[in-house]
Amino acid sequence: MTLEFWYEFASTYSYLTVMRIERVAAVAGVDVRWQPFLLGPIFAAQGWNDSPFNIYPAKGTYMWRDLERRAATYGLPFRRPSRFPRNGLLAARVAQLATAEGWCPQFTRAVYTANFAADREIGDEAVVREIVAAQDRDPDAVLARALAPENKQALRAAADEAVRRGVIGAPTLFAAGEMFWGDDRLDDALAWLGRPG
Amino acid sequence: MTLEFWYEFASTYSYLTVMRIERVAAVAGVDVRWQPFLLGPIFAAQGWNDSPFNIYPAKGTYMWRDLERRAATYGLPFRRPSRFPRNGLLAARVAQLATAEGWCPQFTRAVYTANFAADREIGDEAVVREIVAAQDRDPDAVLARALAPENKQALRAAADEAVRRGVIGAPTLFAAGEMFWGDDRLDDALAWLGRPG
Repeated sequence: MTLEFWYEFASTYSYLTVMRIERVAAVAGVDVRWQPFLLGPIFAAQGWNDSPFNIYPAKGTYMWRDLERRAATYGLPFRRPSRFPRNGLLAARVAQLATAEGWCPQFTRAVYTANFAADREIGDEAVVREIVAAQDRDPDAVLARALAPENKQALRAAADEAVRRGVIGAPTLFAAGEMFWGDDRLDDALAWLGRPG
Repeated sequence: MTLEFWYEFASTYSYLTVMRIERVAAVAGVDVRWQPFLLGPIFAAQGWNDSPFNIYPAKGTYMWRDLERRAATYGLPFRRPSRFPRNGLLAARVAQLATAEGWCPQFTRAVYTANFAADREIGDEAVVREIVAAQDRDPDAVLARALAPENKQALRAAADEAVRRGVIGAPTLFAAGEMFWGDDRLDDALAWLGRPG
């Protein structure tokens, strides 16, 4: 059984799922297919040109507190990023490449840890290069492949696919055709896979 | 220990909490203080003059499916209301009165069941009267007290208090000063009360 896991580097709640999904899914005997995508086009279609957590400050205040509490519950390190949202485009292009090459989960966890635990500027190419190098991969070669037209197009196609499927935010999980939105629906998504067919 | 439970009759996810909170809190040894309030002023401050689930149709589509799944998980009857949102002002005024008189939970469950399981028009005074009568209370006397200036003012004060506390939606739970938003945070709120002090 496979769970599709769609995430976007600017999504705060995706941090929780990124850090725990492999462990939780393994217990359930489920494989995870990681798919980075960009929320920008989806938010723009709703008339938002910034994170809704910035547009609606009361929502933002609550979200940061909730995220901090949930990270503590899961035993995850957390430091509120001094800048939010950070530009995740380059990281998403590398992650898209990494899905094809089989090293997406560890790269994604490293980027999220940099952003949400170490407060590093993941929008900087130098930081992305450093994270790639820490995966024992050559940053020059990886970035060249990540910025190749076919890889950029694959990431754009994922964003289009997300719109078609009715995605409204991240993280989003697909379990046997059912869509679940939010880290707090991970258990529901896994339970859906385990239903009698 | 007491959990404050703030809800609004137009809130769909509040249905889940309304129907299960007494049972779940009792297992945790926690008392529940019910507080109806109106989200209208809070949504208006964000520039919304309708439910965000209507303003953003993709969010609405997802919410109804998620609500249906969660109701099934909890064993709750559910039928998508043919009209949404329904005007909950009169019901909220009666519920505000009922908090003072000690019959709020059963009245609130009856209104939610009418709206979300029986698809009845809870904005109609006749339906509210019928629900009050089913509580073995005199509808004329109850409505007179519910529409008295001091009761209407008490409900307005609750809405003001919600804004002051940073409430962003419903259901909202307060546990020892901590705010939790959403039916899916009920367990978190109860766990917060049980933390070592």
